[in-house]
Amino acid sequence: MPTPLPAIDMDRLRRLLDGVNAFGANAATGGHNRIGYSDADMAAREWLAGEMMADGLAVSRDAVANLFGRFGPAEGPCVMVGSHLDTVPEGGAFDGSLGVSVALECVRAMKDAGIDPKTAVTVVATAEEEGRFGGMLGSQTIAGRVTRDWIDRASDADGIRLVDAMSAQGLDAYGALDAAWPPGAIKAFLELHIEQGPILERVDIPLGIVTAISGVCFLQVRFDGVANHSGTTPMDMRADAFAGLASVAAGIPALIGRFGTEESRVTIGKVDVQPNFAHTIPGVAEFSVIIRDTSEEVMRALREGIVRDIEIAAKAHGLAHTMAEKSWLSPVALDGGLQEILMGEAHTLGIEALSMPSGAGHDAQTMQSLCPSGLIFIPSRGGISHAPSEWSDRADIEKGAQLLLNALLRLAG
Amino acid sequence: MPTPLPAIDMDRLRRLLDGVNAFGANAATGGHNRIGYSDADMAAREWLAGEMMADGLAVSRDAVANLFGRFGPAEGPCVMVGSHLDTVPEGGAFDGSLGVSVALECVRAMKDAGIDPKTAVTVVATAEEEGRFGGMLGSQTIAGRVTRDWIDRASDADGIRLVDAMSAQGLDAYGALDAAWPPGAIKAFLELHIEQGPILERVDIPLGIVTAISGVCFLQVRFDGVANHSGTTPMDMRADAFAGLASVAAGIPALIGRFGTEESRVTIGKVDVQPNFAHTIPGVAEFSVIIRDTSEEVMRALREGIVRDIEIAAKAHGLAHTMAEKSWLSPVALDGGLQEILMGEAHTLGIEALSMPSGAGHDAQTMQSLCPSGLIFIPSRGGISHAPSEWSDRADIEKGAQLLLNALLRLAG
Repeated sequence: MPTPLPAIDMDRLRRLLDGVNAFGANAATGGHNRIGYSDADMAAREWLAGEMMADGLAVSRDAVANLFGRFGPAEGPCVMVGSHLDTVPEGGAFDGSLGVSVALECVRAMKDAGIDPKTAVTVVATAEEEGRFGGMLGSQTIAGRVTRDWIDRASDADGIRLVDAMSAQGLDAYGALDAAWPPGAIKAFLELHIEQGPILERVDIPLGIVTAISGVCFLQVRFDGVANHSGTTPMDMRADAFAGLASVAAGIPALIGRFGTEESRVTIGKVDVQPNFAHTIPGVAEFSVIIRDTSEEVMRALREGIVRDIEIAAKAHGLAHTMAEKSWLSPVALDGGLQEILMGEAHTLGIEALSMPSGAGHDAQTMQSLCPSGLIFIPSRGGISHAPSEWSDRADIEKGAQLLLNALLRLAG
Repeated sequence: MPTPLPAIDMDRLRRLLDGVNAFGANAATGGHNRIGYSDADMAAREWLAGEMMADGLAVSRDAVANLFGRFGPAEGPCVMVGSHLDTVPEGGAFDGSLGVSVALECVRAMKDAGIDPKTAVTVVATAEEEGRFGGMLGSQTIAGRVTRDWIDRASDADGIRLVDAMSAQGLDAYGALDAAWPPGAIKAFLELHIEQGPILERVDIPLGIVTAISGVCFLQVRFDGVANHSGTTPMDMRADAFAGLASVAAGIPALIGRFGTEESRVTIGKVDVQPNFAHTIPGVAEFSVIIRDTSEEVMRALREGIVRDIEIAAKAHGLAHTMAEKSWLSPVALDGGLQEILMGEAHTLGIEALSMPSGAGHDAQTMQSLCPSGLIFIPSRGGISHAPSEWSDRADIEKGAQLLLNALLRLAG
């Protein structure tokens, strides 16, 4: 009897995904809450380890609670496949958990087909990708990109330190410094993730093969003017901090037109005005500026451009201003060879796929610093993510899972 | 021996003002806290009543705690003079309390000079001018401009109802409905107040004679877009509620250039963005628009213009919008005859005075609906008010007080 062609079992995948999402589910909102190093996050990892063991995988964990399940040869390099298991607060059912579940389903499909891979396939559920502590600690640990200084300083929005949050789960954060995988130990890394954007849906193509991941520049800006009575202060004698911010924000389309590309994104997402009374001219406006592009050169031009706009607005409105660059993450180009393999396998399957950049950050960008890495996107309905209404269609999930499976067979087979 | 010319005693005035400001003073901040119907507000009224009685004035109170001290004939119409005794939270030492103190000092100066006025002079310390409950209850009560419906609904920013706040001080808010003064009972109303703006200081003129008080239109606006990932959502697929607000705000100078005057003020003072995360495109932007001008026609044109700008921004950015007009107060022209008298007396005193509108609301605008009313401004250093740093110079206060005294002598003498 010939070996059957390995195929994704969508019902089994669905049960696995539901199993993961039982941890941290908020029935009242439909949101998912497996914040990095929360009890729900750790419990989901324990449950998934049990699933992997039942499948006969060699299960291990590292210092930061990355979970590994190895299938195939115990020795030699592996192909690693997976995504993250943590969520943002009140997140959706697909972000991260789908990529982990599909990875394990691919191994199950290989086992069902009686495949004994030449190269091991290691399923990974990474830790703390969503940046509760400002990084992607799981994949950074694997890739050896964590520093002692960062561990010392890392804390979440509530001021809880990374070392304390991990210690509460019996973990030693400094263990991350000794947990990197050696070069060559991972032959390739593959990740499937939801797009979290509207592009695939708009062009009606079921799969994306990611070429590069945008860099991110985070500027924090403060304008200081003079809070004063909105009735008694003539327009030409104001130092209106919000008026300064408005002129910077209204100039963003022109800024991108001049210095940007189709991949440029400039966003003012957080705005705090003081004293924030209707009848008082705002004396202070604090705001974030997030600049993204897949070209570092374009990012630099956009940054210089908006700094100039901020200075011009400050002068025009009589404001003092301060600026701080809170972070600068460079763009990352993913491995070209893996993109070709993924595109070729999609073609063989007869599934249309779009080469596209990613505007959001993913474990694959960190892993690319250690090994060739590839990233498959499936469409997000309405482009929505990080919300209970996040949704991806079963037909698209099946296509993405089949592509991932075929790519694994090609790389590990 | 001839009657001495009545003159302001600045040291006595200073003691009186300090006496008022001892109530509700916050030593830590330098702020003054006599919020309408607070214990400090009521205690200051009791203390001032004692001062008036010691001066031999006929003291009375009405249903809303307006305090009156009558000097001169017990019968017949009076000239009323004064201002409000309440403050905003953490307010300054001059706003309202200076006008009350100067009014009583004028009567003391007339007494010192042995003047027995033909027409009574009634010093008033009005209640609740700062709008804790959204109106100017004290002067509205005197002028008969309070409705049962408004009393039913009035509440402060913490949700405390007017009727309850007054009841806690032993007052019946509905008594306001029967406390109006009959037409003719007040021959004229005069108020001295700090400018609360920067104009007198800029032109270096020590006194302002107010011609009119700007009307106020308060629009509350909400843009609803789609909160989404700032990295994955292309600029041309966004529904960024803050970008819509920014384009409206940046258009204000052009709006005023097209429809406004030198007296026009358009202010966006309160801004709330949701979800207000740096990495998320704002899905909601709520903001206030305050439109002021001394011409009702200009106010209407500015209102129509900004509504059009809001509609254009909503369309351009793919936003839903709602708008509510929370209030519309028409501009008020003060009595022309009293302006001539005040300007003439300033000329006689050899003090330069500027005819000017008021951008802020004052009791005089309400009183004008009952009787001829006049308003004297003295400079506010730096245009600052409603803050502990509010300040007016002694020399300017003296000039304003002397002008008020001479005008009273002319009207009541």
